[in-house]
Amino acid sequence: MFSKIEDAQDGQRFVLNDVINAIPWNEQGLIAAIAQQYNTKEVLMLAWMNLEALEETLLTGRACYWSRSRGCLWRKGETSGCTQEIHAIHLDCDGDAVLLYVDQQGGGACHTGRSSCFYNKIDGDEIIVSGNPVNLKC
Amino acid sequence: MFSKIEDAQDGQRFVLNDVINAIPWNEQGLIAAIAQQYNTKEVLMLAWMNLEALEETLLTGRACYWSRSRGCLWRKGETSGCTQEIHAIHLDCDGDAVLLYVDQQGGGACHTGRSSCFYNKIDGDEIIVSGNPVNLKC
Repeated sequence: MFSKIEDAQDGQRFVLNDVINAIPWNEQGLIAAIAQQYNTKEVLMLAWMNLEALEETLLTGRACYWSRSRGCLWRKGETSGCTQEIHAIHLDCDGDAVLLYVDQQGGGACHTGRSSCFYNKIDGDEIIVSGNPVNLKC
Repeated sequence: MFSKIEDAQDGQRFVLNDVINAIPWNEQGLIAAIAQQYNTKEVLMLAWMNLEALEETLLTGRACYWSRSRGCLWRKGETSGCTQEIHAIHLDCDGDAVLLYVDQQGGGACHTGRSSCFYNKIDGDEIIVSGNPVNLKC
């Protein structure tokens, strides 16, 4: 399915269910999910989705991931209010990664309260931290 | 190490080698690597890095990944010329993902020739393809 789509022209359409059925889930039944703030284009975080998480995200319009550490669905912001409202979802060329354009609500995408999880910038032989943690943990 | 960095203030520095030594590589020895075009902020692709790929990327200033399908280092664009010049590298809060700000050279980041791998946009119960494939395969 994905190799067929590779050769498709701009604007060509395929049935979503057929595409989802062709997703090459990894050995844990997961694909990688990148969340990007839809307007600023800041990359917020990388998480994981199984089929159930993807279907719930499509149904509710809010990002739902699979928590590998807790072994359960992770409805992002369910308790903290730091939800991610979905603006668009794109699958990649081989279907093992998904890009979510979201509108991050609340304090930030990161559990430290920073807007993005990618706050550790490599600078020569050091890491420099960008952004302060806040009390509100998302 | 990463939990210590979580509480660091903006601008605080840590020794890169200590941070790299604390990376929680997965069972295949990999972390996820997101490539983002540094100026347009378009998310280009998701790939994988092992320690060797990360070290080579740091050394050369060009994106080098680990190809899971071929089981070898993947010096992006080595034969096609579609290299990714590194502008910055950021590790995430728990160290299992890296964000590369790159300047994509050549025809595009995707092996189909499209600028980004994320060309399959979900639109209701369909996928709509954005962008045409080109002959130059990167």
